[in-house]
Amino acid sequence: MGIGPGSLSDLTFRAAACLEEAEVIIGYRPYLESIAAYLKGKEVFPGRMREELERAREAVLQAQKGKRVAVVSGGDPGVYGMAVPVLQAALEEGVAVEVIPGVTAATAVAACLGAPLGHDFAVVSLSDLLTPWPLILRRLKGALAADFVLVLYNPSSSRRQERWREAVEVIKGGRDPDTPVGIVWEATRPSERKVLTTVGEMEKFPVDMRSLVIVGNSQTYVAGGLMITPRGYERK
Amino acid sequence: MGIGPGSLSDLTFRAAACLEEAEVIIGYRPYLESIAAYLKGKEVFPGRMREELERAREAVLQAQKGKRVAVVSGGDPGVYGMAVPVLQAALEEGVAVEVIPGVTAATAVAACLGAPLGHDFAVVSLSDLLTPWPLILRRLKGALAADFVLVLYNPSSSRRQERWREAVEVIKGGRDPDTPVGIVWEATRPSERKVLTTVGEMEKFPVDMRSLVIVGNSQTYVAGGLMITPRGYERK
Repeated sequence: MGIGPGSLSDLTFRAAACLEEAEVIIGYRPYLESIAAYLKGKEVFPGRMREELERAREAVLQAQKGKRVAVVSGGDPGVYGMAVPVLQAALEEGVAVEVIPGVTAATAVAACLGAPLGHDFAVVSLSDLLTPWPLILRRLKGALAADFVLVLYNPSSSRRQERWREAVEVIKGGRDPDTPVGIVWEATRPSERKVLTTVGEMEKFPVDMRSLVIVGNSQTYVAGGLMITPRGYERK
Repeated sequence: MGIGPGSLSDLTFRAAACLEEAEVIIGYRPYLESIAAYLKGKEVFPGRMREELERAREAVLQAQKGKRVAVVSGGDPGVYGMAVPVLQAALEEGVAVEVIPGVTAATAVAACLGAPLGHDFAVVSLSDLLTPWPLILRRLKGALAADFVLVLYNPSSSRRQERWREAVEVIKGGRDPDTPVGIVWEATRPSERKVLTTVGEMEKFPVDMRSLVIVGNSQTYVAGGLMITPRGYERK
């Protein structure tokens, strides 16, 4: 189940009901901290980054004991979240699972910037932990060539600084330097920060796993501090 | 503001608070019917399809009268929703707007099918009302060539039957015929229907404006009635 991008106000009623009805709650520790109000009286299994498979197996094990288990993802569980490992583990053991969607970071960050996803867009994770880097570059180039607005999850991490520079070079090769770029850190949290920049200047802003980057398409513009991708092309 | 894909249980707390605090609520008539419980004691302006600009202008007019106005979108307002026309109208008149995200149909439909968006994906609307058809085909081909999972909004309408057949031909040209395809009609509503098919067979199912289509990538598979796109490539 998805708890949304950060603020509990973006939780859905269905997700809240799932947390209330669960006997066991499993998730990456920072997500559990953000839903502390729902944890009282529950069995709680916190986990670390990169232990997704272990959390999925624990969830299945607890369900096999007859317990109602909620596995928590930030944002939406289907978008780079826990839905895939949980479904895979559950299928092996014949355990029933319901996936409960949430507000994914792409649309929450877009709302915070204005309306940059008003037309077709592509979502790419720049993490090469499980995906070969050449495939990630191929996706970036394909999305740029087809004039998709580009949403970049996991843009960089301490061990991927050089990858980010390479990705920025690819983006510069496929977009006018004046194309608007929005970067949001810690979206919807009290610590939220955002910046509107351009493809030509985007490398000046340090990004990390807590930030999300939206690169406009050929029609995206900034007005009144808002990033907008109009819905149609015919009036331009 | 976004009310989610259909069922009120996918409304967020922030969206519900927005509806409760609004003095005026404006939206496409079917969306207003689905949030009838929130309309009591409010001024309500229902609108028809293709009257988005009129609704945006009405919202700004009401805000200029000093009223708190909520403009309703299905799903997320930034994804083919009302955020763009409302922000554009508000910028012209200097009226303040907050965009409130919602669960977009892509992730709700994905949750209903399993976890088909577990890796990079592209979102394309097949409506050529405001977008030239050749650009839509270019986006489809680009997304297929870069092995994105493909999410198709507005796949067909009564006046676009031929366009849908053309889009299916393009998809057949860019994906193995055995690639899984999920189609969901009326997602999250009591009338929800879904089918799991393949690229080779997808044309057998009539789609319309109330359906959403997800075409898998080269890694997507079906197991136990679920459509899953694994997160990584390295273990395959």
